[in-house]
Amino acid sequence: MTLNIGVIGTGAIGREHIRRITCNLSGGRITAVTDVNQEAAKAVVENFGLEAAVFPDDKTLLAEGNVDAVLVTSWGPAHEQSVLAAIEAGKYVFCEKPLATTAEGCRRIVDAEIKHGKRLVQVGFMRRYDSGYMQLKRAIDERFIGEPLMIRCAHRNPEVGEGYTTDMAITDTLIHEIDVLHWLVNDDYKSVQVTYPKKSRNASSHLRDPQVVTLETHGGILITAEIFVNCRYGYDIQCEVIGEEGIVKLPEPSSITFRKEAVQGTSVLMDWKDRFIDAYDREIQDFINAVGSGKEPQGPTSWDGYIAAVTADACVKAQESGGREEIELGEKPALYEERTLSQA
Amino acid sequence: MTLNIGVIGTGAIGREHIRRITCNLSGGRITAVTDVNQEAAKAVVENFGLEAAVFPDDKTLLAEGNVDAVLVTSWGPAHEQSVLAAIEAGKYVFCEKPLATTAEGCRRIVDAEIKHGKRLVQVGFMRRYDSGYMQLKRAIDERFIGEPLMIRCAHRNPEVGEGYTTDMAITDTLIHEIDVLHWLVNDDYKSVQVTYPKKSRNASSHLRDPQVVTLETHGGILITAEIFVNCRYGYDIQCEVIGEEGIVKLPEPSSITFRKEAVQGTSVLMDWKDRFIDAYDREIQDFINAVGSGKEPQGPTSWDGYIAAVTADACVKAQESGGREEIELGEKPALYEERTLSQA
Amino acid sequence: MTLNIGVIGTGAIGREHIRRITCNLSGGRITAVTDVNQEAAKAVVENFGLEAAVFPDDKTLLAEGNVDAVLVTSWGPAHEQSVLAAIEAGKYVFCEKPLATTAEGCRRIVDAEIKHGKRLVQVGFMRRYDSGYMQLKRAIDERFIGEPLMIRCAHRNPEVGEGYTTDMAITDTLIHEIDVLHWLVNDDYKSVQVTYPKKSRNASSHLRDPQVVTLETHGGILITAEIFVNCRYGYDIQCEVIGEEGIVKLPEPSSITFRKEAVQGTSVLMDWKDRFIDAYDREIQDFINAVGSGKEPQGPTSWDGYIAAVTADACVKAQESGGREEIELGEKPALYEERTLSQA
Amino acid sequence: MTLNIGVIGTGAIGREHIRRITCNLSGGRITAVTDVNQEAAKAVVENFGLEAAVFPDDKTLLAEGNVDAVLVTSWGPAHEQSVLAAIEAGKYVFCEKPLATTAEGCRRIVDAEIKHGKRLVQVGFMRRYDSGYMQLKRAIDERFIGEPLMIRCAHRNPEVGEGYTTDMAITDTLIHEIDVLHWLVNDDYKSVQVTYPKKSRNASSHLRDPQVVTLETHGGILITAEIFVNCRYGYDIQCEVIGEEGIVKLPEPSSITFRKEAVQGTSVLMDWKDRFIDAYDREIQDFINAVGSGKEPQGPTSWDGYIAAVTADACVKAQESGGREEIELGEKPALYEERTLSQA
Ligand SMILES: NC(=O)c1ccc[n+]([C@@H]2O[C@H](COP(=O)([O-])OP(=O)(O)OC[C@H]3O[C@@H](n4cnc5c(N)ncnc54)[C@H](O)[C@@H]3O)[C@@H](O)[C@H]2O)c1
Ligand SMILES: NC(=O)c1ccc[n+]([C@@H]2O[C@H](COP(=O)([O-])OP(=O)(O)OC[C@H]3O[C@@H](n4cnc5c(N)ncnc54)[C@H](O)[C@@H]3O)[C@@H](O)[C@H]2O)c1
Ligand SMILES: NC(=O)c1ccc[n+]([C@@H]2O[C@H](COP(=O)([O-])OP(=O)(O)OC[C@H]3O[C@@H](n4cnc5c(N)ncnc54)[C@H](O)[C@@H]3O)[C@@H](O)[C@H]2O)c1
Ligand SMILES: NC(=O)c1ccc[n+]([C@@H]2O[C@H](COP(=O)([O-])OP(=O)(O)OC[C@H]3O[C@@H](n4cnc5c(N)ncnc54)[C@H](O)[C@@H]3O)[C@@H](O)[C@H]2O)c1
Repeated sequence: MTLNIGVIGTGAIGREHIRRITCNLSGGRITAVTDVNQEAAKAVVENFGLEAAVFPDDKTLLAEGNVDAVLVTSWGPAHEQSVLAAIEAGKYVFCEKPLATTAEGCRRIVDAEIKHGKRLVQVGFMRRYDSGYMQLKRAIDERFIGEPLMIRCAHRNPEVGEGYTTDMAITDTLIHEIDVLHWLVNDDYKSVQVTYPKKSRNASSHLRDPQVVTLETHGGILITAEIFVNCRYGYDIQCEVIGEEGIVKLPEPSSITFRKEAVQGTSVLMDWKDRFIDAYDREIQDFINAVGSGKEPQGPTSWDGYIAAVTADACVKAQESGGREEIELGEKPALYEERTLSQA
Repeated sequence: MTLNIGVIGTGAIGREHIRRITCNLSGGRITAVTDVNQEAAKAVVENFGLEAAVFPDDKTLLAEGNVDAVLVTSWGPAHEQSVLAAIEAGKYVFCEKPLATTAEGCRRIVDAEIKHGKRLVQVGFMRRYDSGYMQLKRAIDERFIGEPLMIRCAHRNPEVGEGYTTDMAITDTLIHEIDVLHWLVNDDYKSVQVTYPKKSRNASSHLRDPQVVTLETHGGILITAEIFVNCRYGYDIQCEVIGEEGIVKLPEPSSITFRKEAVQGTSVLMDWKDRFIDAYDREIQDFINAVGSGKEPQGPTSWDGYIAAVTADACVKAQESGGREEIELGEKPALYEERTLSQA
Repeated sequence: MTLNIGVIGTGAIGREHIRRITCNLSGGRITAVTDVNQEAAKAVVENFGLEAAVFPDDKTLLAEGNVDAVLVTSWGPAHEQSVLAAIEAGKYVFCEKPLATTAEGCRRIVDAEIKHGKRLVQVGFMRRYDSGYMQLKRAIDERFIGEPLMIRCAHRNPEVGEGYTTDMAITDTLIHEIDVLHWLVNDDYKSVQVTYPKKSRNASSHLRDPQVVTLETHGGILITAEIFVNCRYGYDIQCEVIGEEGIVKLPEPSSITFRKEAVQGTSVLMDWKDRFIDAYDREIQDFINAVGSGKEPQGPTSWDGYIAAVTADACVKAQESGGREEIELGEKPALYEERTLSQA
Repeated sequence: MTLNIGVIGTGAIGREHIRRITCNLSGGRITAVTDVNQEAAKAVVENFGLEAAVFPDDKTLLAEGNVDAVLVTSWGPAHEQSVLAAIEAGKYVFCEKPLATTAEGCRRIVDAEIKHGKRLVQVGFMRRYDSGYMQLKRAIDERFIGEPLMIRCAHRNPEVGEGYTTDMAITDTLIHEIDVLHWLVNDDYKSVQVTYPKKSRNASSHLRDPQVVTLETHGGILITAEIFVNCRYGYDIQCEVIGEEGIVKLPEPSSITFRKEAVQGTSVLMDWKDRFIDAYDREIQDFINAVGSGKEPQGPTSWDGYIAAVTADACVKAQESGGREEIELGEKPALYEERTLSQA
């Protein structure tokens, strides 16, 4: 009944997921790990007191490990190969975003999965498991605000390092909005345009910051997404959906209010790691529950990973061109059609 | 058509009212002033460029001044004599709180007014003219929350001087709640009890601060009023009415919200003078409008001034006794029955 | 000392301004009125009990009336002629928006005023007198949020009539944002683009609703303004300024909060007339105070009226072209340079 | 490494805890169950697919079951006997509130535990595990508001059944505040008084509702707690701590905000079960983590259960007497002194 899980990549988030599976969640146990840095892999086994075998690489782990499923938490460029190997081996995969670093890579995974004939892969877009986004989704689905017409959102970080480049505003930052917004309104992106407001003097010389990304869906919904990674005041995720009959807005993270020194207010988080803690727990638990009972994973699919990659590519192109860029997904394969749990 | 107004007492609030009548409001002009400090009175005429005569005292002003109405804005202990003289002279009076410093003094004014046969006096309890309290009153009157059952309120100042004594928490601070709350729920006070929480180290050695005053009305409504005059963080007036079907709460003063330095919030006022500015304007304009067209003043009456004095006396007694003290008003004279404008 | 005021146009807002000058404000009186509908003009004099002469037209009023200043509150197309006539007569003018219905008309007024050599005209853009916008302005001027980089705003009405056309979203609705935003950040508009989200089914067949207008300033500030005139839920004005060090946001109108029937909330206004009541009072009082003491009006100038007209033209062009349109103002005449009161 | 847990009482909350241990949490498994209703116990094993033995009663379960710890989730009157039996057997116990239905019963458990020489018992006061209360506690401990002086709180339910009696406002409702508040400020209760505001017509004829309970601590903190179990609008838990330097307030449950039909607001919960879901998870996980690694439980102790019982008795006495009742705990046994984890 307990799901045996292998972990490929025991870096920061790999360790976080190991910790939650071991200490917080139910129904799974870590039985195998690997990392190009073998010392890191061994240290993890020791530190968490895991009864897990350490393997030299992903292929060996998949071939010899006692695993029902794997988590791919290595660096982005290594994801594609591990995911393809897992599909090949017929194992369930939870792959941290990005599914692959190119749209073609994602497409190869989609094709492998189609060939396999069953969804095996869940991508680590955890926002879909955030209680705020889930409430938004429910309100929209129940047509509480009628048809959604516009979305206004913002993704703000207090600051980023020198290494953060203009395109990372898309591939590292906006990528979560890219996934969650089309899911929220059940629509597909059609085109994108990027505009640059006045640059903050707190941004490094090579970085355009803030940026405003305007996405349009096939259904006509207009999305205005601000990315501002040197906003100074906090890590702040805003999302407001404007519909025909009303508006719904993502809640702020729950926090005590205070009155002190002529201010009435609440704290704003400074660290992104604190923002979606519960969502990480829920996504992994949901993955374990589904695949542990032999069902397809219920979270973001390979196709969603592919959508994110194609859309991110168009956004980066729009960053450079200044004009409107089309987003072409091709037809959605039948494997990824919405279906109820019983069909899965 | 313009109301000629005399001002008795040209101190801080006297000057404020002169300024608003002269620069902000409509339908009135200052034609006479007096103050025991004659230099102060003269300075006011000069500074505001008033066409107003300076009189040696209230009696002379009433006898010789070209006035339809007077504002009594002298020190509290001087109010009674000036108000009685004005009634004697058949002039309308706007008297700053307190109407008189004793319940007996208030009662003498009530009796003089009854003898005169018409309401001439309005007391300066301006909260009834605050848009927030007016909205609360409307909601309660329209039975939006059903029957009101409880009121929770707080009156907080950042700090007070050494001269502020324990009883002033009632006579100077709570006095505004005393007036506004019975008006809000259209009920009369029955008894009061005072409790002292742990004392703040920011209060001076002789002062009990904070205090909690518990008032009960004849209708059974329980009012818990916190007074905290060294709360440090701001001047803050809270009022929440809990009814059978719901709750209504006084709005915070309108203020921009900010996000900065890990805080999301708004400013809290530090100076009480900023809190009810609009209400002061409205109370004086309403007084001018009513008496300028020959109607009785529509604001707090002498009877309300008397209620405040009797209630404050009971509160001070309760501060000292620690027990429950009764509040005995006697029967409400017919002159002060609620009536529609047309009857006035 | 009292300012004698003539009113040209005694329709809805004309009567409102007459009422506030007569009943609410200080220092002015209505001495002359005119309207193409002479009965309307006479009725106003009677209803408000004014001591005012009724004139057959603006020219006669200006020539024969006992007026120091005029309010132009006729229909938009009639404004230019009356304002020019007033400047010609050397009278101060408070002109409701629009100053003139064309940029050329506004420019003619600017030129006439320059020729006259002194600012005589104030345009009725009242938002600059709203306490919320004033707080925003102060915060920005004091650099509380560092340099402003972006503005997000929304102008929403519950519904509009059949006669409301797509361009009126600019000329009747956005026009107030157009005025207040460049004043807020002390910058000039450079270009504009209009995008149409999915249309609400509550909008009439010929109307594009909602719309998103993206304005860029010469300083690089990016403004995203949503116009949604069939939003159903209320009259709602949003404005948020995102700066290098933080964010400031316009307060919601002050309103009691309630808890009832599983909801915690506040009321949203449904009628635009309730939103800026205090601002109307303040703008007219400020006009009276300034010109009553012989100073130039301190509010929005003819040049601001011209900016609004030029910008609105570009916005309408952008509505039609779908592309980015430039906003060309020409050089600001010296008469309209910022200056301190003492220089005025 | 997995904690073997027996469950005594498989009713509503018993099943909830079984579900969370089995599906949500880490480190524990249900190996034994019992209920006076044996069919209920069997059904639970079947429904959750547990590998657990069904025992005829608590004693047999403790003697023969493969259990390291037990959950006591039977009816309140049955708790004492099961807890004493568990201590006798040297097993860890998580006991739902109340620890026992009388103060004497609680004291017997305390004495048994002292005799055993080690803390074995955790009482199910889950609010200490609520993220909002935890934030409040941290703020108070860090002296963010200086010394706490007052607490204002409210416990409101939309409605209760006919069987709910006046004393249940204490024993079933306020009991959670009784536990969490003394923990929050690290102080002990000294006395209590109960006052009855006007009764809601929505309360059944025999029920006093609302009630206001005023507690005083030895440190002088004044606590005003409103209990209102027919408030209609929602399940609402309020807690505000007023200190020398500022105020902190419990957050509202995180919820999307909406604007619709002239209201801006959020939903208020109607069902108490939704309010502290996360806290239930956390308390059980914390119990499993502590006792699973051989440490004493870290949550509310038997002594806390005893405090709750003594305080509730005094509150009920105060309900009847109308006067102030003393709360006498006797000296705190050494076993229950605060200590760091390493000492435990
Ligand atoms: N969903 C989210 O919010 C979120 C948050 C953080 C990171 N991530 C994603 O998780 C992934 C890992 O991020 P991280 O912060 O843990 O990085 P990290 O650098 O801390 O860890 C990556 C680990 O992968 C190992 N590794 C690299 N190539 C490997 C390979 N071929 N086989 C096995 N191991 C290999 C590295 O040695 C390293 O230990 C990234 O793709 C990142 O985008 C997602
Ligand atoms: N409604 C409110 O919120 C509010 C606010 C402030 C003050 N007040 C009340 O207004 C009154 C005045 O307060 P203030 O702050 O202006 O005090 P103040 O000391 O500034 O002014 C009082 C003035 O009255 C003059 N005066 C005293 N006795 C006089 C007399 N017999 N005849 C004529 N003048 C006399 C004094 O010389 C002084 O100039 C007080 O009763 C106070 O409680 C009410
Ligand atoms: N600042 C604001 O928020 C605001 C609000 C409402 C209206 N307005 C502006 O105020 C102006 C008037 O609007 P309204 O709602 O009062 O319209 P209205 O139709 O109620 O009144 C206009 C009046 O002007 C009269 N009139 C027309 N031409 C005239 C002329 N040549 N000479 C004299 N009188 C003439 C009409 O007979 C009518 O009585 C418009 O320009 C409008 O845009 C501004
Ligand atoms: N912490 C909280 O917020 C919270 C919430 C709900 C209930 N509770 C507490 O949990 C306890 C159970 O409540 P519930 O709602 O589950 O009640 P319930 O009636 O649904 O379940 C109680 C179960 O205990 C069984 N039982 C009774 N006596 C027994 C005995 N001697 N041995 C074994 N089983 C026995 C009953 O047959 C029943 O199945 C109560 O003490 C209640 O106060 C606490």
